Amino acid sequence: MKRDNSAPTMKDVAREAGVALGTVSKVVNGIPVGESYRIRVEEAIKKLNYQVNSYAQGLKANKTYTVALLIPNTREPFFGLLAYHINLALLKRKYRLLLLSTDSDMAQEQEYITMAKQNKVDGIIGLTYNPDLVVEEGIPFVSIDRSMGAKIPCVASDNFAGGQLAAEKLADLGCKKVAFFRVGSVLNNEPNKRKAGFENGCLSRSLPYEMKIINTGESYDEFERFLLDHMRDGKLEIDGVFCVTDGLAYFTCKLLRRLGLRVPEDVQVIGFDGIRYFGNADYICSTIVQPVPDLAEMCVELLLQESMSAKPPLVCLPVTYAYGGTTLESPEEEDKGE
Amino acid sequence: MKRDNSAPTMKDVAREAGVALGTVSKVVNGIPVGESYRIRVEEAIKKLNYQVNSYAQGLKANKTYTVALLIPNTREPFFGLLAYHINLALLKRKYRLLLLSTDSDMAQEQEYITMAKQNKVDGIIGLTYNPDLVVEEGIPFVSIDRSMGAKIPCVASDNFAGGQLAAEKLADLGCKKVAFFRVGSVLNNEPNKRKAGFENGCLSRSLPYEMKIINTGESYDEFERFLLDHMRDGKLEIDGVFCVTDGLAYFTCKLLRRLGLRVPEDVQVIGFDGIRYFGNADYICSTIVQPVPDLAEMCVELLLQESMSAKPPLVCLPVTYAYGGTTLESPEEEDKGE
Repeated sequence: MKRDNSAPTMKDVAREAGVALGTVSKVVNGIPVGESYRIRVEEAIKKLNYQVNSYAQGLKANKTYTVALLIPNTREPFFGLLAYHINLALLKRKYRLLLLSTDSDMAQEQEYITMAKQNKVDGIIGLTYNPDLVVEEGIPFVSIDRSMGAKIPCVASDNFAGGQLAAEKLADLGCKKVAFFRVGSVLNNEPNKRKAGFENGCLSRSLPYEMKIINTGESYDEFERFLLDHMRDGKLEIDGVFCVTDGLAYFTCKLLRRLGLRVPEDVQVIGFDGIRYFGNADYICSTIVQPVPDLAEMCVELLLQESMSAKPPLVCLPVTYAYGGTTLESPEEEDKGE
Repeated sequence: MKRDNSAPTMKDVAREAGVALGTVSKVVNGIPVGESYRIRVEEAIKKLNYQVNSYAQGLKANKTYTVALLIPNTREPFFGLLAYHINLALLKRKYRLLLLSTDSDMAQEQEYITMAKQNKVDGIIGLTYNPDLVVEEGIPFVSIDRSMGAKIPCVASDNFAGGQLAAEKLADLGCKKVAFFRVGSVLNNEPNKRKAGFENGCLSRSLPYEMKIINTGESYDEFERFLLDHMRDGKLEIDGVFCVTDGLAYFTCKLLRRLGLRVPEDVQVIGFDGIRYFGNADYICSTIVQPVPDLAEMCVELLLQESMSAKPPLVCLPVTYAYGGTTLESPEEEDKGE
């Protein structure tokens, strides 16, 4: 798009209003001037349909009112939901969102860090598994799910408590032997704590458990092999599975049914994330729900809060359990653990 | 974020390199200068770690390499998928994406149009049901699914062909009497053509059909009432339903099962959109698949293509049918309609 050469400038406004250029500048930037001057300038702006040049404004204020979000994609429901709520939290504060959703382009991610250095954006919220991403101190950056260094706040769900809650729930629902299924990054990150929380929950309830853990990129056939290894006469020795994500829970339910097992009658399955059909219909499976609107608010709050002298290195927000058809229904009155 | 006062300026670079300010400016903006000057400037830039001020650059070039996307949200899977592919299509061309996903804030949408006028963005791609949105001529704007005026290209799936394909598919799969279910905007838009295409397909195959159409915001109970009105002795007189979206197809399958009917044995259901579990797993239902990567490419191509003297007012891209468990499986060799 080419700029229309006939677009009026601040000089045109000054000429039209019969005032000095500095007076127009003051009015445009909200600096007080005499009432009669203000009115003349505003009338001239209206008459000429003068549009403030935002680049010049940005140059002056060193503020862009723009925040960049680095996120793998918006195709997977958890990421799409998170991007949506971060957008809402920014809009509420009159900030714009620059979206970088690129599953694996690490050079692009690094370029956005450079943009923050160049004041092209006021800050960055990043959910990234780029192991080499360098975020210098002093760049306003809030990380989701993964610690990027002591000076960079990390916001996550309370993944440990979520894993523990899943174990307790399976125990409450009558499971006698359970398993934890995980596919994930080898990078150190907050969701890894789901495993430790689950183990802790199983131990505190004396619930026997096993683990099947594979890394991103490895074959899911491992899970089928694990289940077949635990079948005796067409029955599975395991009656509850906690999966590290709802996506893996969905896969696991399909696998169990293919092996002739009923979900939830023979095996109960709990996922993690709280994904719903079409974004807002039923839960796809029984699940530990991440508080996505709260995560989004916290990220934006921590990023834009300038008066905080020390930002917290790690913030964990509470999760909840939701029934989604792959566990037995709880009795109406919840057992309060008395 | 405050600009670091010690950040080097173009003047510092000129002093360091021992050249005129204009020479630094030329090098930074890619304008040829003598080889020895270029090397001196580049070395000074490197030594001082000088970062180009992007506001000043934008001011000069009148280009932001940024495109805004107006979309209701990224929480619903079709929108999340579309935003993702538009982001990829822009990145491929070194453009950034400014995301505005606000379910209903029409003032915000209008503000982004103003941003385009102010050269804050190079153009806008909009999927919006804001009936009052004003897009002046000359603003680079590409609309998705809804015509915004003769001079503004509209990109959509071939919704008519999709409706027709659904009818033909239900006929091929043995349906004897079918229905069309729709919830949608009263605004004139491309997806409305799904209905006309479906009617056309039914007529061409002599397949009797009925319609149940409600507007956004009205109660879905209407669909249950419709089905109950067509039940005789526990059997439904209708054995195929085409739903205007996969979301409605999901709801319809649940409703049918609640009424004691089997899907697909008693009633086959086809949706529209091509939504998959978790963005890339199985289709949630049998569906007419929108070519989302192609839609995204076309929007970006039309928006950024400057050399086109006349842009096409409406571009319709081909859809396909995909089996997703809510129809009977087709025989392996498709009937080629001989």
